[in-house]
Amino acid sequence: MKVAVLAGGVGGARLSHGLYRIHPRDLTVIVNTGDDFQLHGLSISPDLDTVLYTLAEWADSVQGWGLSGDTRRCAEQLARLGGETWFQLGDLDLATHLYRTQRLGQGATLTKVTEELARSAGLQLRLLPMCDAPVPTKLRLASGWVDFQDYFVRRQHADPVLECRYQGADQTPPGPEVVKALTEAERIVLAPSNPFLSLQPIFSLQGFAELWAGCRARKVAVSPMIGEAAVKGPLASLLASLGQPVNSLGVARLLKDWIDVLILDEGDAHLIPEIEKCGVRTVCTLTLMKTDSDRERLARVALDV
Amino acid sequence: MKVAVLAGGVGGARLSHGLYRIHPRDLTVIVNTGDDFQLHGLSISPDLDTVLYTLAEWADSVQGWGLSGDTRRCAEQLARLGGETWFQLGDLDLATHLYRTQRLGQGATLTKVTEELARSAGLQLRLLPMCDAPVPTKLRLASGWVDFQDYFVRRQHADPVLECRYQGADQTPPGPEVVKALTEAERIVLAPSNPFLSLQPIFSLQGFAELWAGCRARKVAVSPMIGEAAVKGPLASLLASLGQPVNSLGVARLLKDWIDVLILDEGDAHLIPEIEKCGVRTVCTLTLMKTDSDRERLARVALDV
Repeated sequence: MKVAVLAGGVGGARLSHGLYRIHPRDLTVIVNTGDDFQLHGLSISPDLDTVLYTLAEWADSVQGWGLSGDTRRCAEQLARLGGETWFQLGDLDLATHLYRTQRLGQGATLTKVTEELARSAGLQLRLLPMCDAPVPTKLRLASGWVDFQDYFVRRQHADPVLECRYQGADQTPPGPEVVKALTEAERIVLAPSNPFLSLQPIFSLQGFAELWAGCRARKVAVSPMIGEAAVKGPLASLLASLGQPVNSLGVARLLKDWIDVLILDEGDAHLIPEIEKCGVRTVCTLTLMKTDSDRERLARVALDV
Repeated sequence: MKVAVLAGGVGGARLSHGLYRIHPRDLTVIVNTGDDFQLHGLSISPDLDTVLYTLAEWADSVQGWGLSGDTRRCAEQLARLGGETWFQLGDLDLATHLYRTQRLGQGATLTKVTEELARSAGLQLRLLPMCDAPVPTKLRLASGWVDFQDYFVRRQHADPVLECRYQGADQTPPGPEVVKALTEAERIVLAPSNPFLSLQPIFSLQGFAELWAGCRARKVAVSPMIGEAAVKGPLASLLASLGQPVNSLGVARLLKDWIDVLILDEGDAHLIPEIEKCGVRTVCTLTLMKTDSDRERLARVALDV
């Protein structure tokens, strides 16, 4: 079965890893690049890196992002020099940014660079950015519009978000390999990633709705909410400030036009009647992924639905 | 006494350090930037860095460049990813490049960034790039024109150089602080740096000859040749391939229109008659700088002439 996954950061990376472990062939992981930004002249793709590191089993398992055993020698020296240090750069992690920046500067597409990195990491699957051109996510806070990393890292996603924009998305089509993977897929999985910050950027790409409507695969999402909390990140606060129920019903309302099935946590079974009213079928299971076998089990549910 | 120094890489850094130790006030070090280049999206200024690290007493004393105690975690990871690794990047050294690149990207001049780095390193002197715009040194080898770092690092300066060009120099004036420092200087010291690769790029700047002619200071150079060898780098091979005597007489002929006095190694006293025929006065002393006190002693000679 050909499987395509849409993924953002840590949650997306973990479910992708489970899928890769149980279904390594015919797997394509399509990753949000709305978080991408430039720092110190480097092209940084945080979600692509998190997914790459997790799939390669290089990720720091405690924090979920970054590389296991990484050090901060460069970052500490940069602090001594008075440089900007709000975005943490590990010494090993820096190598990915240097590689990507060099290759993009030589004219390679982000798709090509990502393929090269995945190959260097020994991965057999296809790892794809959602598109090749920058489509930066912008967020409106009470103080005005800010860049994603400004909100997410520098302000530690503490401010209520009033609006999200995916700048340039309507003029940027998904990459041709993304189109091919989704068109050919027999199962499409939406990983438990933030709908506003990881999935909507992908949905907003030029022509994406038509592409999606033409995909024959069943579309199965895993809710990133467990009860009234997101496993990681600011989703609960975003649901609240953007006027949605702060639970998997809010997720279902956001995704209802994009999915056939929502996998939700077994503790959220009471939400099923309201979710199914949205026209979305439901499956309840344990959705928290602590261990590799949690990831595999959840991946199996997503494929077996 | 106001002192200005023209310097390139390791030799220039060492004499500048000696001068800084004995004459820390009213010292300006003007550094070649013909070696500057871009790699992995980063703006790298090898000579400025060597001088900065040496003055700050951060330099690796064995290799003469780079930072003492630096590590190569990022570079090793970059090799694993299949990246370009011909130019060595230490983890601590990278911080300088990240800082510089970020600040240049924000619109700061190279002069301003260098001042900030020097201040962060606790230096009291003025450290200046020769100019703010890129003036890349290009070298003609038998195989054609190449970039400086291609010749110097990637090919390990093994190829004979047939011609040097300082691209854009005739349209790029020295920075205003360089003009001020040279005009006000009461002593100008040309460090034992490669005339072709470190000093000529400075001399070639727009209006530099007129500026130089208007400087009242005595101009004292230290020869980088000892016998028929350069202390470091490819100067001997350049003198040979560009048709000059491979010793301090060759240096004197290259510098004769720019200096009043050439300090040469005491073993080269037999060259004095020929050098003085060029209209250059000579002083003989021990010019090899192994220790800090060697640097200080040679600096004192350069100031006392």
